[in-house]
Amino acid sequence: MNVVPTIAFRKGAVELIDQTLLPSEYKILRIEKVDALREAITSLRIRGAPALGIAGAYGILLAVEEKWRKFESYYFDEDEALVDDFPAIVTVDAVRNQLRLVSDALRATRPTAVNLGWALDRMTNVCGRSWDSPPDMLRALHKEARTIHAEDLEMCRAIGRAGAALLKDGDSVLTHCNTGGLATSGYGTALGVVFAAVASGKNIHVYADETRPLLQGARLNAWECVARGIPVSVLCDGASAALMNEMKIACVIVGADRIAANGDTANKIGTLNLAVAAKRFSVPFYVAAPSSTIDPSIPDGTAIPIEHRSADEVKSLRGVAIAPREAGAYNPAFDVTPCDLIAGFITEKGIVRPPFGA
Amino acid sequence: MNVVPTIAFRKGAVELIDQTLLPSEYKILRIEKVDALREAITSLRIRGAPALGIAGAYGILLAVEEKWRKFESYYFDEDEALVDDFPAIVTVDAVRNQLRLVSDALRATRPTAVNLGWALDRMTNVCGRSWDSPPDMLRALHKEARTIHAEDLEMCRAIGRAGAALLKDGDSVLTHCNTGGLATSGYGTALGVVFAAVASGKNIHVYADETRPLLQGARLNAWECVARGIPVSVLCDGASAALMNEMKIACVIVGADRIAANGDTANKIGTLNLAVAAKRFSVPFYVAAPSSTIDPSIPDGTAIPIEHRSADEVKSLRGVAIAPREAGAYNPAFDVTPCDLIAGFITEKGIVRPPFGA
Repeated sequence: MNVVPTIAFRKGAVELIDQTLLPSEYKILRIEKVDALREAITSLRIRGAPALGIAGAYGILLAVEEKWRKFESYYFDEDEALVDDFPAIVTVDAVRNQLRLVSDALRATRPTAVNLGWALDRMTNVCGRSWDSPPDMLRALHKEARTIHAEDLEMCRAIGRAGAALLKDGDSVLTHCNTGGLATSGYGTALGVVFAAVASGKNIHVYADETRPLLQGARLNAWECVARGIPVSVLCDGASAALMNEMKIACVIVGADRIAANGDTANKIGTLNLAVAAKRFSVPFYVAAPSSTIDPSIPDGTAIPIEHRSADEVKSLRGVAIAPREAGAYNPAFDVTPCDLIAGFITEKGIVRPPFGA
Repeated sequence: MNVVPTIAFRKGAVELIDQTLLPSEYKILRIEKVDALREAITSLRIRGAPALGIAGAYGILLAVEEKWRKFESYYFDEDEALVDDFPAIVTVDAVRNQLRLVSDALRATRPTAVNLGWALDRMTNVCGRSWDSPPDMLRALHKEARTIHAEDLEMCRAIGRAGAALLKDGDSVLTHCNTGGLATSGYGTALGVVFAAVASGKNIHVYADETRPLLQGARLNAWECVARGIPVSVLCDGASAALMNEMKIACVIVGADRIAANGDTANKIGTLNLAVAAKRFSVPFYVAAPSSTIDPSIPDGTAIPIEHRSADEVKSLRGVAIAPREAGAYNPAFDVTPCDLIAGFITEKGIVRPPFGA
């Protein structure tokens, strides 16, 4: 099954689909500076925990291009590291120091998703090894970034295989936010489970929570389903309890931005409402995520940092004011679902349950 | 405390605030034909169960104006029935038959809210008495419509007094949809409870669910709070569970469109999600409504008819497409909250519990 070209590193730049424009416009952004990548992450032009990990890794390659690249040449292309003419005068330590600064800046863009920090840690660990010369280190960084990207795709497919067994022909699945190819290397986590079930010949109907404030469910999950010919119905977030009460919903499957050691799960705001309603209406509630989303250093959900975003996201919609200027807003980007509401975690290693050790 | 001029019957026409334009524009519509009133109800220019009851009653007066009025004269003004020159040739039966047709047409505009049918029944009952002449009947109809309006205002104030005792100085209250003056004769049900508490000197912070798809919470509840100087924060419907988990919320108070004899309550879509989350986080969940909202002929929630509305309400927002054209939508206007999730019913008779007898 083909994948969405969510993100790529090509000819010295990060290329990504500007997800804020979907579904009305499909546009690939070419990003040549780390600041522009940070803006793209902060503005959610690219989002989704696994995709952010890949963006972080590529951000490190971009930092090298931006700082040391000359004229039309570049150091990294899709499959190659072309670093032989890296300036001999630049020391390994100088590169390492520069990349540490960039890593810190990238990490600060989105505090909740663990994958961003996890991918940056992997890149930083490569820098930390002892290197004879910058080109050797740069080749290794290029390889690490490619590996992070390739591993995510393989992990998504493994998550899909593990989760597909939960779905029967004719099932309806309720989803939240975007958890398909756009949120990952191109295939998906929760929506990847649906894709894998459909690929194995099952008919599945997707009910996509619209996911206010930024409507990733209505805009992106629905777009990915339509693109693959999977029947999809969009619903307002407040309609999910009525849906589970009235219609036969086989299960809810959501993604995750960070999973604590005890299984408490941070995910897009609205996930907790869904989980509570699913419990009330006896609908199994699953979290689908690569195991890199598990943060064993965090004992439970209370310790997960939650990003609060601008009031404008709630008080206006695509530029139109929908609330009085004088009103305040409560706008956490994520909520934390306690583990007791989660039937299982669909990972690349199969369906697992906490506790998750270090 | 002053009231919002939600709806009035003045100089032969229904006048109402076009609520679809708020908060950006405040505009009074003057409606001179029953078809235009039906359009205003269907398009939610006026909405809210109690306000719809008043609109239904005034619709009957409007039908008389539209059918028999001549030139610049009119039969009904704000306080008077000027029906002495009603055409002598028109029989009581002719008026009765015409008004029955109009009543059926108005009743069909919104099937869920019980108050609309209840007010139309009251008007039809007046028609059903024995009358010597049309003017006598018309004077009685005018009086009945005025009484329905005045009773609603008095009932809202009584609901406010009954509910205000539940709130302490410094409390935060979570609301859904619009339940203030705009939903009623001008004062409110659930939000009226807040107004009454504030009027008695308590500081209350309102958290207003935005209430997708039509955003009556963000647009109208927030607007009414701002207008009265009450601090208000808007939140996306999906953020309510996180809010109840993180912040100290004293209670949730919602309105109702129809209450079954066993207490199951139909209200704006999203109410059930709120009620389930409130139960999980031990936040008391109250329904505030005039006792006319109780429909003792309906044993439980499964028998309440639920209006499903256009997919466009979900798939676009203020004219902007937010989902792919090919996607379907699930868009019930209401959900039904089972009585076991409701701590109490705040009515003009005090805080009551089911069963509600005939």
